[in-house]
Amino acid sequence: MVATLRDVAAAAGVHPATASRALNPSTASLVKPATAQRIRKFADKLGYVVNPLARSLKTNRSASVGVLIPDLTNPLFPPILRGIEDVLTAAGYSALIANTDADAGKETLQASAMRSRQVDGMIVASAYLHHPLLEQLVAERFPLVLINRQVQNLRTSTVTGDDASGIALAVDHLVELGHTRIAHLAGPQSTSPGVVRMQAFRSALRQHGLEPDTRLIVECDSYRERGGANALQHLLDAGCDFTAVVAANDLLALGCYDVMSPRRLRCPGDISIVGFNDMPFIDKVSPPLTTVHVPHYEIGAEAARLLLDKLNGSTAEKSVLLPVSLTVRGSTAPLRRRTDRTRAPSTRPGRQRP
Amino acid sequence: MVATLRDVAAAAGVHPATASRALNPSTASLVKPATAQRIRKFADKLGYVVNPLARSLKTNRSASVGVLIPDLTNPLFPPILRGIEDVLTAAGYSALIANTDADAGKETLQASAMRSRQVDGMIVASAYLHHPLLEQLVAERFPLVLINRQVQNLRTSTVTGDDASGIALAVDHLVELGHTRIAHLAGPQSTSPGVVRMQAFRSALRQHGLEPDTRLIVECDSYRERGGANALQHLLDAGCDFTAVVAANDLLALGCYDVMSPRRLRCPGDISIVGFNDMPFIDKVSPPLTTVHVPHYEIGAEAARLLLDKLNGSTAEKSVLLPVSLTVRGSTAPLRRRTDRTRAPSTRPGRQRP
Repeated sequence: MVATLRDVAAAAGVHPATASRALNPSTASLVKPATAQRIRKFADKLGYVVNPLARSLKTNRSASVGVLIPDLTNPLFPPILRGIEDVLTAAGYSALIANTDADAGKETLQASAMRSRQVDGMIVASAYLHHPLLEQLVAERFPLVLINRQVQNLRTSTVTGDDASGIALAVDHLVELGHTRIAHLAGPQSTSPGVVRMQAFRSALRQHGLEPDTRLIVECDSYRERGGANALQHLLDAGCDFTAVVAANDLLALGCYDVMSPRRLRCPGDISIVGFNDMPFIDKVSPPLTTVHVPHYEIGAEAARLLLDKLNGSTAEKSVLLPVSLTVRGSTAPLRRRTDRTRAPSTRPGRQRP
Repeated sequence: MVATLRDVAAAAGVHPATASRALNPSTASLVKPATAQRIRKFADKLGYVVNPLARSLKTNRSASVGVLIPDLTNPLFPPILRGIEDVLTAAGYSALIANTDADAGKETLQASAMRSRQVDGMIVASAYLHHPLLEQLVAERFPLVLINRQVQNLRTSTVTGDDASGIALAVDHLVELGHTRIAHLAGPQSTSPGVVRMQAFRSALRQHGLEPDTRLIVECDSYRERGGANALQHLLDAGCDFTAVVAANDLLALGCYDVMSPRRLRCPGDISIVGFNDMPFIDKVSPPLTTVHVPHYEIGAEAARLLLDKLNGSTAEKSVLLPVSLTVRGSTAPLRRRTDRTRAPSTRPGRQRP
């Protein structure tokens, strides 16, 4: 026979409401310390356990937060999730995590499954520009924070790295090394980072007095290695003239590596490559990738903090841009003089380093 | 005013119990189709929403599963979690994920937080050999599946890669290449994989008629790069004679890379290195790591399947060992002849490849 709150109250000689307050950490201070202690003693003795589901029913709070991400195995997301979880745990919340594979149908399904579990709020890492699900959540004033997405017409809080500055740093670095023919492997233009980074690429070139060459800007069909490999292959097959590449993320840059070796092209000797994200272990690849460092753990932690603020009643919507930096490694080098270059470097010219 | 089940039942002219059955997918078939349809129509009309928390209170089921892992940012765990989540989602369950940092106190806290949220079961990736928390859960017959841990005195289901065979494959490969002085960077011996892999290392050497040299077996103080770097440094500083290393995981092997270049030691020219896990992108490091491939996604998926079996009433406890394989890449090479070798290869002897 399981002891009820009534049993505890009767044993301690108090009203059940008093027993309830004494056994709930957030209201225990409303009960005289001696009384609270007596109630807790009887609760222990009778083996009474607070049922948080019953409490959730009354308070309409589950102390859990839903987190929707495209794919946990994309190396971007583990540090973000870790940041979210560390902040939530410290505040007594748990995280329900679901992968959506960036599929709108899956996203809607997972979101409604979470809501039916009465999560108190949601953190959504969705890159899509148009998104009925998010629009609905915002319309309902459901506590929501977006990650990795700069919003245009959607009034809700977001946390993202400063993508535009990151791309500008990458272009500045390549121009300083003497490159002027710089290609951009852009992310899918149905995604917010894809659009922001491509626009930033164009304006960074113009800042240096270089006119963007549309033939050198290729939209990749994914953010994965295959997408980058296909895009570089396309540029090379088309005989485009370029000496450096700014890839919209690290995986696209890795895809370039895969295409170059079979063609006997060297990085950075023939083509300098800059990635974006500074994902784990990218310093260990060969050559180690020059890339824009994005503070993913902090992005997750900040998103969780903004959501907790909302859960505590804040109605302010904030757009937080966290600063990024350029990490220079071995995949970028000064432009070799034009006379040294062959367009089809079958002679395997020696690799130069900065 | 929110519509209740009673309102729906009254509107449809049925008993509330009938309305309840009709609106619960798992019992709807008990109600005549026409009646069920009428009830659903009124539920829609009145805006009645099933409250899964209320249902959980009655059925004592939350359709959520707790997953405890040491650290999401260890590249081992994302594919495991993805496997768990794919199987759970397909069965209508959600995953609550918590990081424990392999800290017993945090583990206990997180587990009790999850139980207070009435998760139906737990999947625990804990490598520790002795574990009061797990012993307690098993004693209570709480549905539990362990990952990456071979159990000795604990009767519960486990899923793990076949560690012993993996180490044997690594040693076989090195012996075939001519190596006989093989060191082992062992994982912490307070962990099950650490113990299993070290025992397997000893017996694999004996299988080849080689007597294990205790000076060449070093216990690392973590599974992280730093641990591997320290251990290799120790072996080198002690002037030990060895030409190959079997590391208990890939990160320990990466730690070796970090120590070798400043000492002008080459991998595989001077020392061949084998890792364990085949973590993502380890094929892109320089040199690409020869390592034991472990099917992490499948381990997660299988653990989720075993847990679902338990939640559906199975009382069988299973120990599942999933097969592993050796992926040979650039970090291992044939032993150079003794006469070629210098103990302090300051002359940077040319690198040999298999």
